[in-house]
Amino acid sequence: MARYDCISLTTDYGLLDGFVAACHGVLARLAPHARVIDVTHLVPPGEVAQGANVLAQTVPHLPAAVHVAVVDPGVGTARRAVLVEAASGLLVGPDNGLLPAAAAALGGIRRVIVLDNAAWHLPSVSATFHGRDVFAPVAARIASGADPSEAGTETDPETLVRLPDPVVVLGDGWLEAEVTAVDRFGNVQLAVSGAVLDGFPDGVAIGGLRASRGRTFGDARPGELVVYVDSADRVAVAVNGGRAVIALGVTPGDVLRLAARS
Amino acid sequence: MARYDCISLTTDYGLLDGFVAACHGVLARLAPHARVIDVTHLVPPGEVAQGANVLAQTVPHLPAAVHVAVVDPGVGTARRAVLVEAASGLLVGPDNGLLPAAAAALGGIRRVIVLDNAAWHLPSVSATFHGRDVFAPVAARIASGADPSEAGTETDPETLVRLPDPVVVLGDGWLEAEVTAVDRFGNVQLAVSGAVLDGFPDGVAIGGLRASRGRTFGDARPGELVVYVDSADRVAVAVNGGRAVIALGVTPGDVLRLAARS
Amino acid sequence: MARYDCISLTTDYGLLDGFVAACHGVLARLAPHARVIDVTHLVPPGEVAQGANVLAQTVPHLPAAVHVAVVDPGVGTARRAVLVEAASGLLVGPDNGLLPAAAAALGGIRRVIVLDNAAWHLPSVSATFHGRDVFAPVAARIASGADPSEAGTETDPETLVRLPDPVVVLGDGWLEAEVTAVDRFGNVQLAVSGAVLDGFPDGVAIGGLRASRGRTFGDARPGELVVYVDSADRVAVAVNGGRAVIALGVTPGDVLRLAARS
Repeated sequence: MARYDCISLTTDYGLLDGFVAACHGVLARLAPHARVIDVTHLVPPGEVAQGANVLAQTVPHLPAAVHVAVVDPGVGTARRAVLVEAASGLLVGPDNGLLPAAAAALGGIRRVIVLDNAAWHLPSVSATFHGRDVFAPVAARIASGADPSEAGTETDPETLVRLPDPVVVLGDGWLEAEVTAVDRFGNVQLAVSGAVLDGFPDGVAIGGLRASRGRTFGDARPGELVVYVDSADRVAVAVNGGRAVIALGVTPGDVLRLAARS
Repeated sequence: MARYDCISLTTDYGLLDGFVAACHGVLARLAPHARVIDVTHLVPPGEVAQGANVLAQTVPHLPAAVHVAVVDPGVGTARRAVLVEAASGLLVGPDNGLLPAAAAALGGIRRVIVLDNAAWHLPSVSATFHGRDVFAPVAARIASGADPSEAGTETDPETLVRLPDPVVVLGDGWLEAEVTAVDRFGNVQLAVSGAVLDGFPDGVAIGGLRASRGRTFGDARPGELVVYVDSADRVAVAVNGGRAVIALGVTPGDVLRLAARS
Repeated sequence: MARYDCISLTTDYGLLDGFVAACHGVLARLAPHARVIDVTHLVPPGEVAQGANVLAQTVPHLPAAVHVAVVDPGVGTARRAVLVEAASGLLVGPDNGLLPAAAAALGGIRRVIVLDNAAWHLPSVSATFHGRDVFAPVAARIASGADPSEAGTETDPETLVRLPDPVVVLGDGWLEAEVTAVDRFGNVQLAVSGAVLDGFPDGVAIGGLRASRGRTFGDARPGELVVYVDSADRVAVAVNGGRAVIALGVTPGDVLRLAARS
C-alpha cells in the first residue's frame, strides 16, 4: 500500500495542555518516518464548521498526507469515527461534518471506512480523547503503509454527516453571503468564490459601509474598507492598516450583504 | 550509551518571542538526528506545579526521550540544574519540584545528576536563559549518546526539591481534592485518580452543584455538569457544551468537594 | 551550491488559521530534507520593527539556515520581495526593513537579490499571501541547493529599506533608550547593549522608579525592579515575581530613562 511521509493535525485542543503533544507522541511512535504538520489547534472549541473551513482551505497546500482532524464535541458518544479516502489524500476524524469539505478540496470522496477495528486503536481507549487513542494511531498506521480497508467497515459515503451549506444568495448587483472566517488581521472571509466579484463595479457597499474593490490591502487608503479575492480564492473584506471585523461587527455564521454602490 | 531519537520541550516561555526557537536551534545543532516535540510553552509564567502536572501527564504518551522542562523563576540563582534519570526516559530542568512527578510517571527515579559540568553547556551561559544555554545542550548531548554521568555530579535523589502533595481528603460518600488543571474546554481536573469514583452513585454534587456521573461530555444533558474519568485517569468535571470552570468558579490550587447526592 | 538543512519561519500570521501550515506545506513539498523551525508567528500584526527585533535576536542561535520572515503590510503592492545573503545565512522576505538587523546579526550583508524570477514562485501567486506563494518556495529552492543568483536580479544593498535606528541617548550617569520588546514575563528590553551598565552603580532609577542592578530576577527582592543584562545582551528590566511592563507602563517604541540613584 501507499506510504505517506506527511501527517497533518487540525484540532480545537488549544496549546495550553499536553493534548497535542500526546498525539504527536503517538504518531512519532507508530509512524516515526512521517513529518507532522500542525494546521491549527486553535479552532474555537467545538466549532465544527470553522474547523471544516480551515481544514478545507489548507489541505490543498500540504504534501500528500493523512490528515487528522478533531473538533469533536460528541467524542465518546454514538457518533462514528471515520476514514475518508479522497482522490489526493486521506482524512481521519469524527463523522460530524468536519471532513467532507476537505475531501472535496482533495478531489472528492472515493471511499469511507468506519473505524471499528479496535486492533488499530491504542490498547486502552479513553472516552474523551479519541485524537490520541483512535485517530492518531489509525493515521499513523495508514501513513506507514497499512491497508486502509483494514481500518474498519466500509460504508456508503452518502451516510456521512454533512454540515448545512453556508448561506449564499446571488442577486443582480448584490449578494448575501455567510462569514466563514475571520483571520488574525481582522480580515473577514465570505462563503463565495472570487469570481462572483467580476459582476461588481469598483465602488461597492459591504454591510452597509462604503468600500472599494482592490487586489490587496494596500490598494485602499489607510482605514478604508477593501473587498478583494483572498488567498483561498474567496471574497473577503479588509481594512488597510485596520481590522475589518471591527468595522463590520460580524462573527463567523453572520451574513453580509455586498452591493454595487449607486 | 543509549541514543534518543526524541527530545521534548515544556516551558513557560510563551510563543511571542524567539525563546523556544533558540532552544530548538541549539537542539538542531547539537542533536540534528532528534525529533523535537513541544509539549506546551504556555505553562502560566512561573507556575511550577502546573508545569509539573502537564509534564507528568504527557510524557507517558511520548516515545523514549530526553524531556527538557523549564518553569524556572529562580533561574540564575543558587537553585540547582539537574538531570533526573527515570526507568523509561530522562528529564532535564531546574531542581524546583518540576520534575519528580514526571519521573514517577516514567517508572520512578533511578539517578539524579547535578549539571555542574560546564563543558556540556554553551560556551557563554546567560543568567536568565538556562533553557537555551544549559538544559537544551545537556539534553542534546544525552540524546546523541553521551554518558549522562558526565553531565555532572551524582546526588542523592532524596535531595531533590519536591512540591507539596495536592490536597486530597477521602471521606465516606464524599471527597475533597485540589484542582490540578483547567483545559481549553473549561474542564476541571482534580488530584484524584478515576478509581475513587467507584464508590459514588450516579447522582453527585460537585462544588455544591448538582451533577451526574458519566463517561463523556455527551452523557450529560446540554448545560449539565458531568463528573467523569478524564484521559489522564483523573476525576474531572465538564459541562456538556459549556465550561465547567465557569460554573464552578475555580482555578488550579482551589479545593472542590464531591459528594453523593442524597 | 550550498544546501541548507534548516529553514526558519517568522511571521505575524498568528496560529488561528492554516496560513503557517500552508507555508510548511510548500516547504515540505519543495525541500523535504529540511527541518523547519518556527521562530514565532505572533509578531503583532504589521509591526515590522518588532518582527525585525525578534528575528535578529533569534537567528544567531539557529543552525545555518534560510530564514523566511514575513511581516508584510504592503504585500501585493510595489514593495520589493528580496533575498538577503549574509555571512552566515540567508534571509527571504519583504523589503520593508524587516531583514537588515538579522543580516547584521548573521555577519553582515553580502548580496541582495530582488525576487523577480517568477519561475521560482508558485505557479499562481495570490496578491495577499506571498509567504506561501513567493517566500516559502524561494527559500525551499535555496535550501535545496539552487543558486541564489537565479532567484532574481541583484541589487545594491544600499537600496534596501531600513528602519530608523531606535532612540538611544547616552549621558553622564543616565541614558534614554527605546523599548524594543516586552516578553511573556513582562520583562522590558531596551535598545542598548549590556555593556553600558558598567558605568552605573547598583542603585538606579528606571522610568522614575527605584530599582537595583542584578544578574537575574531572583537577585532582587520579590516585587522589586531589577535592571539586568538579558539573554540577548541587552539592558532589560524585570520585577522578581511580577511584571515590569505593568510597573513601568510602557510598550515597544516608548523611551525609558535609566539614571544613577543619588
